[in-house]
Amino acid sequence: MHPDVLATTLENVFNLIGIFVFAISGALLAVHKNYDIVGMAVLAEITATGGGILRDLVLGAVPPAAFTDHVSFLIPLGATALTFFAHPQLNRIQSAVLVFDAAGLAVFCVEGTAKALAYGIGPIEAIALGAMTAVGGGIMRDVLANDRPAVLRADSELYAVPAVLGAAVIVVAHALAPGLNPPLIASLAALFVFALRMAALRYGWRAPRPWGAGAKSANRQ
Amino acid sequence: MHPDVLATTLENVFNLIGIFVFAISGALLAVHKNYDIVGMAVLAEITATGGGILRDLVLGAVPPAAFTDHVSFLIPLGATALTFFAHPQLNRIQSAVLVFDAAGLAVFCVEGTAKALAYGIGPIEAIALGAMTAVGGGIMRDVLANDRPAVLRADSELYAVPAVLGAAVIVVAHALAPGLNPPLIASLAALFVFALRMAALRYGWRAPRPWGAGAKSANRQ
Amino acid sequence: MHPDVLATTLENVFNLIGIFVFAISGALLAVHKNYDIVGMAVLAEITATGGGILRDLVLGAVPPAAFTDHVSFLIPLGATALTFFAHPQLNRIQSAVLVFDAAGLAVFCVEGTAKALAYGIGPIEAIALGAMTAVGGGIMRDVLANDRPAVLRADSELYAVPAVLGAAVIVVAHALAPGLNPPLIASLAALFVFALRMAALRYGWRAPRPWGAGAKSANRQ
Repeated sequence: MHPDVLATTLENVFNLIGIFVFAISGALLAVHKNYDIVGMAVLAEITATGGGILRDLVLGAVPPAAFTDHVSFLIPLGATALTFFAHPQLNRIQSAVLVFDAAGLAVFCVEGTAKALAYGIGPIEAIALGAMTAVGGGIMRDVLANDRPAVLRADSELYAVPAVLGAAVIVVAHALAPGLNPPLIASLAALFVFALRMAALRYGWRAPRPWGAGAKSANRQ
Repeated sequence: MHPDVLATTLENVFNLIGIFVFAISGALLAVHKNYDIVGMAVLAEITATGGGILRDLVLGAVPPAAFTDHVSFLIPLGATALTFFAHPQLNRIQSAVLVFDAAGLAVFCVEGTAKALAYGIGPIEAIALGAMTAVGGGIMRDVLANDRPAVLRADSELYAVPAVLGAAVIVVAHALAPGLNPPLIASLAALFVFALRMAALRYGWRAPRPWGAGAKSANRQ
Repeated sequence: MHPDVLATTLENVFNLIGIFVFAISGALLAVHKNYDIVGMAVLAEITATGGGILRDLVLGAVPPAAFTDHVSFLIPLGATALTFFAHPQLNRIQSAVLVFDAAGLAVFCVEGTAKALAYGIGPIEAIALGAMTAVGGGIMRDVLANDRPAVLRADSELYAVPAVLGAAVIVVAHALAPGLNPPLIASLAALFVFALRMAALRYGWRAPRPWGAGAKSANRQ
């Protein structure tokens, strides 16, 4: 197989894994919130596709990809069915879920940034849209669960920061060397996001809190 | 009157009733949350038009119908004015409100699904958009009231499920018999949604909860 | 300088001030909610640009201005950096912040209404879109902070009402005297919104609460 084809295939595979795992996280939160199967399906869909839908609305790419590509719509329904029966088991393998979630984070931010650049969006805004593709669904999930979004809280490991940095890699490479092999750049950026997120989980890295707020309780509301 | 014209007229009447009653439910929740008249108007508008606006943004049908059809924008303001003075009386006739709300649910899901199909959306996604037209406004209402959305919770009677099934009727009829009388199909599907929702309220039918979660308290947060 | 140019320049200056102060209010709420720097940046961006993004999505003006005009995207990041270090000082000058926030409210509602009219939206809907431009970002800020939106609550001074009235001034002037000097009208409408908001803060003016709810506690949930 040609390396580019391999990279594209891998990206697709990781993309599907990302959709699936994001959907699982939505369905599990729905179980935790005592929602029924409708709530599970809604949270699964919104977590997996919400960030991409918002990006596509901003870009004017309508209908959003999630509504034209059947697969990305059907996978969350499958994840809902699995979680319906296997939520105790899935809760027990949370650390494995986090690994796949990091893969989803990596692929979503790279894919979102590339799509924003392809639509002619400026560099800073493309980074924001790429990061939003990756973390937007999780924020909507938490809003629908009536939680403070995990990604915004000081007591959670780095999540948006790897996405922002990975998106920046894509943007910088696109600006400095537009002719460079895009699948290669995308793969390296995704690998970097994945590694940074895994390291943050392993070593408890967190984003800076406002100056002077360090001594306050992280759970204060 | 020709039957088609009658069906279309009836659909319009039920659509207006649906907008009105959805708006009442938003304004009443605002009263319950101690919001002022601005909060009442915002919740009334968002409950009545939010689902349709989201559908139209996804379809690329901008400006959304709620911003071009003056009536669907003005009715929620009328509902706000009525609720401002008559909220104690409206709270007392909740069961009558629920009947009209079921009519709104029925008409909104049928109308949303038909519009999605007319824009060339695939079958599964059209069902989702149709159901979202019907339940999306209520979810936004609850988010703006800082509640867990009622439609997602295990302790509420079937609401999204009738909408999904009614949307599926439209999609299946459209696929199997595209030439069939659309107003007739729409009326039958709406009647089915209405009857299913009323039966769910009457007999306390609820959507399945995650496997093994049956014994837990339905109000657990 | 020609008066029109002066008015346009002033509008731009106040617009930048509005973006900056709205962003500060988002970043300060993030500090209060114990969010990290990511949460601060997200709330700053959404407060400053959320209302305008929503308006542009409804109008079909994509990508929204916030994603093409670099300045309005970068200012909230600057506001985040300032708040990161100076949040204790900013909290101490809340009353000064409220003055600038009133200026932002005034400029945003005038600008939003004018843009809606330019896109051919009807009068009532243009008022709604203008007011939404001004208050939509603050509502999204509060939703992401898991609060009941301040602008909807009965225990907050007039905020949306000045925006609605200012938008109405623009719409009425546009309808009665389309040839009239638009920068002049815009300036007068903005001044009116600003004065009304400041008077509401000074004298504790509030929007009407539902009939008969006057005796209840304003903090009841």
